[in-house]
Amino acid sequence: MVRSHKDGPLPRVVIVGAGFGGLNAARALRRAPARVVVIDRRNHHLFQPLLYQVATAALNPSDIASPIRRILRGQENVEVILAEATAVDVAARAVVLADGSVPYDYLIVATGATHSYFGHDDWARFAPGLKTIEDALDIRRRVLFAFEAAEREPDPDRRRAWLTFVIVGAGPTGVEMAGALREIARHALARDFRHIDPTQARVILLEGAPRVLPVYVESLSEQARRQLADLGVEVRTGQMVTAIDAEGVGIGPERIAARTVIWAAGVAASPLARSLGVPLDRAGRVQVEPDLTIPGHGEVAVIGDLAGLSQDGHPVPGVAPAAIQEARHAARNVVRMIQGQPRLPFRYRDKGSLATIGRAAAVADLGRVQLSGGIAWLAWLFIHILFLIGFRNRILVLIQWAWSYVTYDRGARLITGPLPKIEGAGPGTG
Amino acid sequence: MVRSHKDGPLPRVVIVGAGFGGLNAARALRRAPARVVVIDRRNHHLFQPLLYQVATAALNPSDIASPIRRILRGQENVEVILAEATAVDVAARAVVLADGSVPYDYLIVATGATHSYFGHDDWARFAPGLKTIEDALDIRRRVLFAFEAAEREPDPDRRRAWLTFVIVGAGPTGVEMAGALREIARHALARDFRHIDPTQARVILLEGAPRVLPVYVESLSEQARRQLADLGVEVRTGQMVTAIDAEGVGIGPERIAARTVIWAAGVAASPLARSLGVPLDRAGRVQVEPDLTIPGHGEVAVIGDLAGLSQDGHPVPGVAPAAIQEARHAARNVVRMIQGQPRLPFRYRDKGSLATIGRAAAVADLGRVQLSGGIAWLAWLFIHILFLIGFRNRILVLIQWAWSYVTYDRGARLITGPLPKIEGAGPGTG
Repeated sequence: MVRSHKDGPLPRVVIVGAGFGGLNAARALRRAPARVVVIDRRNHHLFQPLLYQVATAALNPSDIASPIRRILRGQENVEVILAEATAVDVAARAVVLADGSVPYDYLIVATGATHSYFGHDDWARFAPGLKTIEDALDIRRRVLFAFEAAEREPDPDRRRAWLTFVIVGAGPTGVEMAGALREIARHALARDFRHIDPTQARVILLEGAPRVLPVYVESLSEQARRQLADLGVEVRTGQMVTAIDAEGVGIGPERIAARTVIWAAGVAASPLARSLGVPLDRAGRVQVEPDLTIPGHGEVAVIGDLAGLSQDGHPVPGVAPAAIQEARHAARNVVRMIQGQPRLPFRYRDKGSLATIGRAAAVADLGRVQLSGGIAWLAWLFIHILFLIGFRNRILVLIQWAWSYVTYDRGARLITGPLPKIEGAGPGTG
Repeated sequence: MVRSHKDGPLPRVVIVGAGFGGLNAARALRRAPARVVVIDRRNHHLFQPLLYQVATAALNPSDIASPIRRILRGQENVEVILAEATAVDVAARAVVLADGSVPYDYLIVATGATHSYFGHDDWARFAPGLKTIEDALDIRRRVLFAFEAAEREPDPDRRRAWLTFVIVGAGPTGVEMAGALREIARHALARDFRHIDPTQARVILLEGAPRVLPVYVESLSEQARRQLADLGVEVRTGQMVTAIDAEGVGIGPERIAARTVIWAAGVAASPLARSLGVPLDRAGRVQVEPDLTIPGHGEVAVIGDLAGLSQDGHPVPGVAPAAIQEARHAARNVVRMIQGQPRLPFRYRDKGSLATIGRAAAVADLGRVQLSGGIAWLAWLFIHILFLIGFRNRILVLIQWAWSYVTYDRGARLITGPLPKIEGAGPGTG
């Protein structure tokens, strides 16, 4: 299937998705003898690892998102299209859009993952996940509004339900959300209300596995659990959620009355994968060849969270560093194919894992070294600032973090969008 | 109607609305012998004069909005309620909420104004106004998306319509929007597209009156017109819009094909005014007594954009300084009534007007002195930074402005929310 373009017009490389994978693939092709087309249904690249900071009112959307056009504007051989790719026509070598199609010579699919409710899609209404800016603003609205509703609720049981926050899933996102929620309650909101004490807010972190951060080494899970407990997060491991509705969460026969539930558990690959016509794993990921291409189509590579790949018996994790390594490898293979050379297999190099828990609290697994507490937090801060796309963002985010750190304040505490309905809440006064 | 509370429990002062008027009334009552209740349907105070900067992607919502609770948290005698006031029951002395009611001894109504389409409410869909953060994000989405749609539109006429922006109304908001849109097109987006030249975008500013900024002195209108022309804004005065739809604007028999229309023309007072049972003017403002109270009810004051008041034959303008002066006066009168003293009449002191047009372009009327150009812009910058609520915001906004000024960049260029539909647009490539 590999064609040589040495004498014809420049081959066209289409990249679908401008997350860590897609964007790095485009950049890696900057000197390639090819026209590159990047398609995304958003106009911005999103720095997802910091999305929980938007959900918890510490950062603004534009601090962690940057227009794809701006990021790539200096790269002459790239064109950006704002459009939703609905399918890939592998036989015709074209990406199908909602309103047209884009042909390709080489394709890199990097559309990532969304959250999965393990077959309980009705839970989505009550327990939003955290993948997009809109998700983050939705969660921010729910969290801030819960305190407002509690302030006006005269019934103590109902008030307690407004002040109870359940997070389902204790991976990095769940751990970060839980820590940040307790910090908001303890510091940012502490003096703002007259009828409630925000510091009494309960944050319950539920995990089905026997420990938090289950993919990390056990000692770090234990460190994280202790740091969460210090913040006042109630960690409950080995707990399978069986019901979620507007009033709370069910765990078998037990019920937790909570008006705010956040989903940080399941991940499902983007539905675009199905149209490739190749085997998917249980989470919907494309089972790629060792060179990241799909069986029978060397011109189509799948990278990032959408790619299902195992190495030495372990799955390559769905994290940004893996997506970036895969992106660069896929780009290199495209250039090799254009030059008539064979593709090379991909090899993932694990550089370690990091999760932050709160103010000066974090855990880091750097392979030989495990860190926790303040040092891990500084490492986390440094690496995240470093990888934030766009110089302006880095400076501004650093200033906002410094400000929040010193003052315990959260600048982006805005409830925007339609106000949620309080069912049965009485007036605040009178 | 004035009661003395010297011996009873503290009287309750209810303030509806936490804009410039309501917030300053609450602050002016900080040492008053009263319990103060502030009711707003938003959790944030909004610095409306800079809202156009959010609409044009220069600032983030949280740069110009601050939680009401945080602003007032140090003031012990204030309670904040997040709720929508639907009416005032003047006879029962209670503010009616969507879900309850709040009784008052003294009431200050400061719910402001919204935009009016002069009886053409069907225009609202096609030509959003600019009063809330949601409005600003809607306009930002439309403006940024128009360039994306133009990039993908092969038909030259349709592409031109995407690249034509019409602003209806050349008051301060319309002038500021027009200038900012041309600056985005000329600088921020200039190098980002491959099929269109954003610098060719047309910005047309329509005004029914014979000159821009019609309430300013004539020499400044002329200065503003010239500065707008320098930026490439097409200014058309004496033009009455007779139709607006998805395809553009009609001015009598003439049509302007434009996919983006912004409404900056009419203002209507908040509908709460009707429930007061007193005469309203044509724009729905409450015709208040010289002491800012309503006829027959000295315990009810109306301030800010909702108050209709003339002085020396001129209406007091609907601007922030007027609202702030009225707020302080109404608060002072409340204290006088509590102390058994008579109310005093209000006297507006005009400190001047300012409007910004673009980068180092503005006009200022400071009574004896009229400024324009760079000096007026610096005055505008200084005053707006000074009045921004919250120290953190001032610093961050200043940094962002400095950054934008040096780099011509716009940091908040995000299209969030549902993607608009492009009807009939072809694919970008292929």
